[in-house]
Amino acid sequence: MRDFSADHRGLSINTATVRKQRGQDWPLLQILDACAARGIGAISPWRDQVQAAGLAATAAAVKAHGLALSGYCRGGMFTHTDPAGRQAARDDNRRALDEACTLNAPCLVLVVGGLPGALAGQAAHKDIAGARAQVSEGIAELLVDARERGMPLAIEPLHPMYAADRACINTLEQALDLCDALDPQRSGALGVAVDLYHVWWDPKLQAQIARAGAQRLLAFHVCDWLTPTTDLLNDRGMMGDGVIDIRQARGWVEANGFAGYSEVEIFSSANWWQRGGGEVLDTCIERHRRCV
Amino acid sequence: MRDFSADHRGLSINTATVRKQRGQDWPLLQILDACAARGIGAISPWRDQVQAAGLAATAAAVKAHGLALSGYCRGGMFTHTDPAGRQAARDDNRRALDEACTLNAPCLVLVVGGLPGALAGQAAHKDIAGARAQVSEGIAELLVDARERGMPLAIEPLHPMYAADRACINTLEQALDLCDALDPQRSGALGVAVDLYHVWWDPKLQAQIARAGAQRLLAFHVCDWLTPTTDLLNDRGMMGDGVIDIRQARGWVEANGFAGYSEVEIFSSANWWQRGGGEVLDTCIERHRRCV
Repeated sequence: MRDFSADHRGLSINTATVRKQRGQDWPLLQILDACAARGIGAISPWRDQVQAAGLAATAAAVKAHGLALSGYCRGGMFTHTDPAGRQAARDDNRRALDEACTLNAPCLVLVVGGLPGALAGQAAHKDIAGARAQVSEGIAELLVDARERGMPLAIEPLHPMYAADRACINTLEQALDLCDALDPQRSGALGVAVDLYHVWWDPKLQAQIARAGAQRLLAFHVCDWLTPTTDLLNDRGMMGDGVIDIRQARGWVEANGFAGYSEVEIFSSANWWQRGGGEVLDTCIERHRRCV
Repeated sequence: MRDFSADHRGLSINTATVRKQRGQDWPLLQILDACAARGIGAISPWRDQVQAAGLAATAAAVKAHGLALSGYCRGGMFTHTDPAGRQAARDDNRRALDEACTLNAPCLVLVVGGLPGALAGQAAHKDIAGARAQVSEGIAELLVDARERGMPLAIEPLHPMYAADRACINTLEQALDLCDALDPQRSGALGVAVDLYHVWWDPKLQAQIARAGAQRLLAFHVCDWLTPTTDLLNDRGMMGDGVIDIRQARGWVEANGFAGYSEVEIFSSANWWQRGGGEVLDTCIERHRRCV
């Protein structure tokens, strides 16, 4: 297991972690400057932030700073009730792939979608098995585009509390079943993003990480689970402030061949988003050394 | 599959559903009166409510009304950092077993506990595998007492969002693995409580219900998952108001031999606990016919 206690070469910052500080959007190019100034070597940007900054400008800044990407957030949202919605999602996912290529990302992270309409508050149906079948079809289609571009797809299983409205792939086992079905040859074109916030509780986590192996372990996201958690979406904790044994899990992914970054992704409306972005980045560095 | 569309003989009321209406405790004996007046045939009381009403008085009221129990809530909380805490839990669980016997419950429901201290906001450690081992030991010990009394134990897997602070048994598969380890003969002394709120999202739900079979399916709890869910604990929905295909799941448990009640357990601080208890019970009856 790599020793990161004295440096932060293993750290990546998911830019949602500092997207809006004290009510003000922190522009992506400024985030990149702040990361580079601290010797942070990698980021994972969100599409809306890239769009606001401009794709070409973002790519240029990434290159100028010598930053790596640990992923690109995000594609997916495959579940729809109508063919037009499905086609629009596919078109949008193709654009996401192109952007990921432009930014030289190692993978496009997929949040697959839940029951259609649920995120807006009114699910169109209760057929989660049907939604899962639609996800499988959607990934199979997108995988063709992904292979053409040489851009791997990373299925991110989301915590079961998001099964209805954000992603109906909810365990690493389920995500890997899908990988086995759609890419049985383990080509590297399809894998998983292991975000500890979503999977830390799973009694099969270690076994499924071993099952995934280096070919399927495309991204590793960290933050912490707080007790109590006061909001289902935006109350994620800084590493070390919660109950997840992050270092143990990093040991597991590394023992199975993962050699990438630990990507910090924290949605925290009441705490970390209320602080200065520089303070948040400095804290990420310190906690990465001590807790990741 | 049984047809309950025209009556409510399959309905049980978990008394937490109407424990505190508009800020006032609804005394258990009044809840029993109100259930009986509506022809509701079964209840599942909580220990604190029974204690407030008195065990003997509760048993007498249950008998006088001809009510059945669908379970007794609850034992468990096996995870502790010190031997004294563990012993106190065992003693308390034995008392719970005795109470369940007095009330003629079909099973004692177990909420097994999470990381010690987490429910109070400060976990004593992050070793969830260790907590799970302690749960296994605790259930093995309690099973001796349960067998002596002829009172089955029903392990309730709780939603993964409660893994840290309430229960580190989080899937039906995991609960059944424990049943297989501790009661390989499938004696009927150990089984599971299937609460759809906790397990509805699980892609393996149908398969694990089939694996459980009649000997292990000791209780079936219903409510609904709302989108959005605004509180991790107390924002459960009335059947029909959310995204769970409850009838499909009832079909699965019945196809595998479950012939008991559908127990309505709704924690709803902002909605159902703010209404009159009679209105809530009437709604449970109507929704049970239409949505369960």
